[in-house]
Order: sequence, then structure tokens, then C-alpha cells
Amino acid sequence: MTKGKADSEGGRVSRRRLLGIAGLGGAVGIGAGTAAGHALWPAQEVGATTTGSHGGDQLEEAARARLARARTRAVETPGRQGGIDTPPTAFSRTVAFDLLASDGGRPGAQARLGQLLRRWSEVITRIHVGGLAELPAGSPAYGLAPSSLTATVGIGPSAFDKAGIEPGRPTRLVEIPPFPGDALKPAWCGGDLVVVVGAEDPVACATAAQMLAKAGEEVARVRWSLDGFVRTVAAADSPGATPRNLMGHKDGTGNPKPGSSLFEATVFDRDPDTPAWMRGGSYLVVRRVRILLDSWFDLDRGERERVIGRRVEDGAPLGEKGEFTPVDLTLTDSRGRRAIPPNAHIRLSSPQNVDGSRIYRRSYNYDRGWDERGQRDAGLLFMAWQANPATGFIRIQRHLAEGGDALNRYIRHEGSAIFAVPPAPGAGFIAEELLT
Amino acid sequence: MTKGKADSEGGRVSRRRLLGIAGLGGAVGIGAGTAAGHALWPAQEVGATTTGSHGGDQLEEAARARLARARTRAVETPGRQGGIDTPPTAFSRTVAFDLLASDGGRPGAQARLGQLLRRWSEVITRIHVGGLAELPAGSPAYGLAPSSLTATVGIGPSAFDKAGIEPGRPTRLVEIPPFPGDALKPAWCGGDLVVVVGAEDPVACATAAQMLAKAGEEVARVRWSLDGFVRTVAAADSPGATPRNLMGHKDGTGNPKPGSSLFEATVFDRDPDTPAWMRGGSYLVVRRVRILLDSWFDLDRGERERVIGRRVEDGAPLGEKGEFTPVDLTLTDSRGRRAIPPNAHIRLSSPQNVDGSRIYRRSYNYDRGWDERGQRDAGLLFMAWQANPATGFIRIQRHLAEGGDALNRYIRHEGSAIFAVPPAPGAGFIAEELLT
Repeated sequence: MTKGKADSEGGRVSRRRLLGIAGLGGAVGIGAGTAAGHALWPAQEVGATTTGSHGGDQLEEAARARLARARTRAVETPGRQGGIDTPPTAFSRTVAFDLLASDGGRPGAQARLGQLLRRWSEVITRIHVGGLAELPAGSPAYGLAPSSLTATVGIGPSAFDKAGIEPGRPTRLVEIPPFPGDALKPAWCGGDLVVVVGAEDPVACATAAQMLAKAGEEVARVRWSLDGFVRTVAAADSPGATPRNLMGHKDGTGNPKPGSSLFEATVFDRDPDTPAWMRGGSYLVVRRVRILLDSWFDLDRGERERVIGRRVEDGAPLGEKGEFTPVDLTLTDSRGRRAIPPNAHIRLSSPQNVDGSRIYRRSYNYDRGWDERGQRDAGLLFMAWQANPATGFIRIQRHLAEGGDALNRYIRHEGSAIFAVPPAPGAGFIAEELLT
Repeated sequence: MTKGKADSEGGRVSRRRLLGIAGLGGAVGIGAGTAAGHALWPAQEVGATTTGSHGGDQLEEAARARLARARTRAVETPGRQGGIDTPPTAFSRTVAFDLLASDGGRPGAQARLGQLLRRWSEVITRIHVGGLAELPAGSPAYGLAPSSLTATVGIGPSAFDKAGIEPGRPTRLVEIPPFPGDALKPAWCGGDLVVVVGAEDPVACATAAQMLAKAGEEVARVRWSLDGFVRTVAAADSPGATPRNLMGHKDGTGNPKPGSSLFEATVFDRDPDTPAWMRGGSYLVVRRVRILLDSWFDLDRGERERVIGRRVEDGAPLGEKGEFTPVDLTLTDSRGRRAIPPNAHIRLSSPQNVDGSRIYRRSYNYDRGWDERGQRDAGLLFMAWQANPATGFIRIQRHLAEGGDALNRYIRHEGSAIFAVPPAPGAGFIAEELLT
């Protein structure tokens, strides 16, 4: 009997607030369906059609790509750990560890670190070579296809002092300095070691992370961890499409292309002064970036596009056509204004504005739901690979943080870590030259 | 120079503890590879073979199944909400809400609840009928295939008093009583409302949960939420295989088969005394069950099998062959002992031991990594559907908790909630008859 009341109250709700993040734009037509007396739940129609705008051929191709990744092992570049230039998987788990205090002082810590890296190397090799089919019955991933599983091991700056191996520390492995606006939680920062697991299946991914943590439990304890995801290839509109982040924007458009000489120069440390154990390796910067999703989607589409500097629909730079059109920062609109606003994210982070600095982004969405205060605990586990953090992430982030990036108002950097990721071992184990 | 030390220390590590949860059994051969001088990272071999034991035809079938689910909409049974008898999806998000205090007392609360359910009904219909293709550019799920998305709405016992609709409360919607061994955290229990989203793609799933929470934010606030997953169909050894939980056991073997008369009787409330708005609906019990994974995998395989009462490899009842062989509780082994031990989980939960009580389990793994104390925060979001909770979950769980279920030592019930899930609306909105 309160229907009229409910309806009139409904009118008080801001339509924009309702539909903003709801992401349904003007398409919902709140109330229209009921007003016209149409069935709201026409089950007989549901499923009658299949893909809507998804073309059959393109989707078949996407499905084959997904199948190929789910059924096969990752193909690593010889001499490199997987998870850097292998195709990004749909799921990831990043686990940072602290070395446990040891009885034997630094020599003992060094020995134990070596023991841990040897063990991890062996476990990783086993699952790389044998695949999940090697797992015994009783494993959660028993019987699953190989799922392109990779596990990537890195060493943080704090490990070197603890294990008494400071002489082996690469000069490029610097601590990440504080930036204006940082809202870091110490428990989500740092780590003596990291393992990044990637897989096309979530159970394979979780199982491998658990296996590696367990294998190391007498030497290292988990400091923080986070699970990430992007859209699966099977659900994507086309198999190679750049995935979207939770802000709805394509994420990674500006990346150097794996295999290109720009990619090689951007990602891998070939400096002759770098210690031999790290030569040909890379540096991983991880930032846990909460996205203030409610505030973000309170912006209208045009506002969001001007914050980023790209169109949401196809990722094209504002004023241009096509996702991969090179960004022209000088472009102006018909009224003479910058097509890409002065404080747009892609302007401030453009290599043209930061002395040519580049990184290779390989980020994952995270979504832990809502925190105790009812705020969204979701965002981007930003992962940047580079040959030299000082001229890579650190320079770019300083420019963004100090330069008034329009995006700063909608994100919050809550976790931060850096790791040296050595090459894949030959006959030995990861970082063996550092530890023997 | 510490290699010898490291090796000798390595010998002190319990091999069983190392390999237990690592899940690699005796297959790893710790040290063997390095001792023999074999390359530990033979990248050139990796990827040369594809699926190991996975037969091509079977996997093609699995992939087609996955593709079909990823590209199409869920097909609901007319008159039922999706997410109950629709095929379980790989991903889920369960979000419980508290109604916000309103100005207008109970009449106001009732009106606002009606407004919320109407709005949710409209949003759900829109994405069911139009699929994700309806989303505007800027949505994280823009352009994704329909992904078998479902969203299921339920009402908790606490909502009835708050909204002044106690007369409409079904007598079967009882509070879940405390059980021995419960370790419930209030923040993870209860809720006036619930939305369970399911999808074959994690971005589709997260986006829909966010949309629905946002659509309701002026009326209800998130109380707790949890994301869940099972293996994807593409990675499974066969498309219809029962998924494994994080304990490594197949989970759901004993379920009544959707479409069967047993399923209908188990799941749907057709009692003539049930209020009309709930007739043909079902009751959902949600339990957040942490699994003490380290303790669990400290058990050897035989011990784990005797706790459950089934073989890990194929899910067969102990002493029998085949996952779906009916459980024979009287079976003895050659020494006259019960094949299924007296305190085994499947013995105590068997319908034969709980007056024929049955539930339909549709559970999801959750894995939030490690908590602040370094303990695994992972387990099962146990979801039980039934026609009558008193003779369903509540009776079974009492029997397990009071009867000394061997599994109790390895699990911890940390969250608990119950909801009435009404039928799908016809021309109106969910539970409209309750609220008008």
C-alpha cells in the first residue's frame, strides 16, 4: 500500500548518482518497464540470443586464444624468468615475504636465503616443466590444464643488509622515495622477497602461491599479498584487446611492445656495472593503488576522459582516432584549447615530459569488496617493469605526484615495494651467483 | 662460499612439511636436478609439449563449454531467479547489506526497501536481457561477452522488523542458531539483504556487484562481501567435472541433480502456508568457513581421505569405485573396520544419519591470502540452498558440530547468514507482493 510513497521517494534520488557507477548510462530507463507493464524478468527471452554485438569469427578467435593459454604451459624466453615478457595472464597473486630472524647471524641468514631460492627454483621448474599434471591427487589444482602458469621471484632492498650481501646489491635497486599524496600503509609496503604468480585459471594461481609460500615457510614469512585479475580472453571482445581497469579505461596502451628493441631497452638491465647475477634482469615496482570508485564515477564521461587524456570507448588520445595513435601533446581543439588538458594523466606521464622515461606496465585489478567503513577496497595493483627505477617509475611518479596529475584526486597509493628480478638460472638456482 | 652450509641446513628441513601443502608429493626430487647438473630452467623445453595427460577431444569439449558460457547469457528457469539452478559460474561475489536508518520510521523503511528492490530488479533485468553489451563505454565490463552473468537477491530475517513487514515473514526463515565450535565474527554475519552475483568472467562479476551496490547506496550499506572462485571450465580436465575445493577434494558430489524431482523438493519452498511472495522461492544459508590449510596438508593423503570419507583422486566413497557410487555406510574393510570412519564428514552429514535432510551446495573457494598474523585467510564460502533451513542446513550442521565431525579440527566457521530468496518477479519487482 506504500507503492505511491516508494515511487515519489524514488524521484528524490539523484538519477546521475544512481546511474553513474551503475554504468548503465541512460539505457536503464528506470521505471519505464514497469510503467508500461512489461515483464521485468522475461526469462523466455533470456538466452534466446547469444552474443549481441560479438561477431562469431572474432569470438571464436578469442576463445581459441583463451583455450591455448589455458591448456598450455607458458613459453619463456631463454634466460628470463616468466611473468615479464610472457603474455599477461588473467589472474595473478603477488606475495611479499620477510626473511625470518635466524640463529646464525648474517652468515646463517645468507645460507638460509640461498636455501630458499634454491627450493623455489626447484618447485618453479617442476611446475613449469611438468605442469599441473605433476601435482598429486589432493592438490586443489590436480588435473587442471597447465594454465600458462608462471612464477617470478624478486629480491627487495632490505634483504641485502639482513643477509649480509650488501656488496652484491645493484646500485639501481634503490628504495622508492616518498611522494606527495602517498597514503602508504606500512603493512602493505616493502618485503625482502617477492613471488608473483600468474595463471589463466584462478585455482592454479592460488595453488601455486600457496605451494611456494609453504615451501619457504621455515625461512620467510608472508608480509603482504594481493590477488589480481583482468578480463579473461574468452570474454573479451577481441583476443588482443587491451584490458580495462576498474576505472573503465584501457590500461597499458602506451606500453612498449614485447619483443621490440624499445621493450628490451625499457625493461632489462644490461649495464656492465650491474653485478653479474642481475645482468639481464629487471626491476619490478609494485604499487597498491586504491581507486576512489564512487568519486570517479560521479564524474561524467567527458570529465573522466579529460582526467586521463584518452577516450573511454577506444582508448584513443583526445582529439585523435584509434587507440594506438601516437599522443600529440600540441593538438588543440576548435577553440584553441589543448585537446589533452594540461593536468591530464597521459600528458604528465608522457615520455616527452619526463626525459624519455619509460616503464612497462603489467598491472592487475584488485577488488576486495568494501572495507570496514563501507568504502570500496578496490583498485589497481600497479606493476611497472624497468631497467632502472630511478629513471623509470620513480621519475615518472615524481612528475605525476608533484605536477598535479588530475588523476591524483581519484586514487590513493596505499602500498609500495621494489624488487630486483634476476635472470632465470641456467644449471643453478635463482640468484645463485649472489649467494655462493 | 656458503653453499655447503646452505646444503647442510637444507637437510634439517622436514621434507614432509616442505612437500605437504606444496602438493608436489615425492615428485619434486629436491636437489636431484642440481646435483645431477641438469638445467633447472630449460626454457627451450617449456611449451614444446602442450597438455600432458589432457586429451585433445575432451579438452576441446571443455573449451567449447567454457566458450558457450562466456559468450552467452544465463538461461533462467521461468519464475526463478538465476544463480540457483543455473549452471554454477567460475566466479561469484556475495554482498550483504544493512538497510540504512530512515526518517519515516517503519513505513519509510518499508517504502525505501520497496524502492531498492524495484531498482535492483530493473538493473538485473537490464543486464540479463541486454547483456554487458548494454553497458556504456567507460564501464570496466564494456564490450565483454555476456559471461553467463546472474544476480540473485535475498532478504534476511532482520529486514522484516526494520521495515515493519513482520507479518510477511515466512516461518521457515529462522535465525541460524549457534553451533559448538562456531568462531563467528559479527562483521561477517547477517545482513538485511544479499546480492549474489555469478559470472564466467571476473571483471563482469565485479562490475555487476559494484553496479548493484551503487544503485542501492541511498537505501542500504554494504555489511560484508566476499569474492569466490572455482576452476574455470577451460582449465578443467573435463567440462562437467565436480570442482575441487582448496582442501583438494571434489566438492558437491552428493548434490541432488538440478532438474531432478529430488532437486526440486530439496531446494524450493512450495508449502501452502508460506506467504505467496515466497512460494516457489528458496532459502540460502551462507557460511564463511576458513580452512586451516597448513594443518590440513600436514596430514598425509590417507588421513585426509579418512577425515572426509572420500578418495581425493576421484571423489569415490572410501572402499568404493567411482565418484557417484552411492555411499554405503555399512561397508567394512578386510580387517572388519568401517571403510568410512565413524567420525568421517560424509558419514555424519549423510541423509541416512540426519533424517533424510538434504541441501543443495553451491559453494565457492575464497582466498584472501594471509592475514595480519601470517595465517592463511582462505577457505570455502559455503552456500547451501534448501526448501526449509530447519530441516536442511541447520539440522545437518548441528549433527556435524555436535557429533564430532573429524573435519571440525581443520575448519573454522567465521561468518554466517541466512536469506529468503523469492521467485523471479513477473511484471513487477522482486518481493513486490511483500512490500505493497
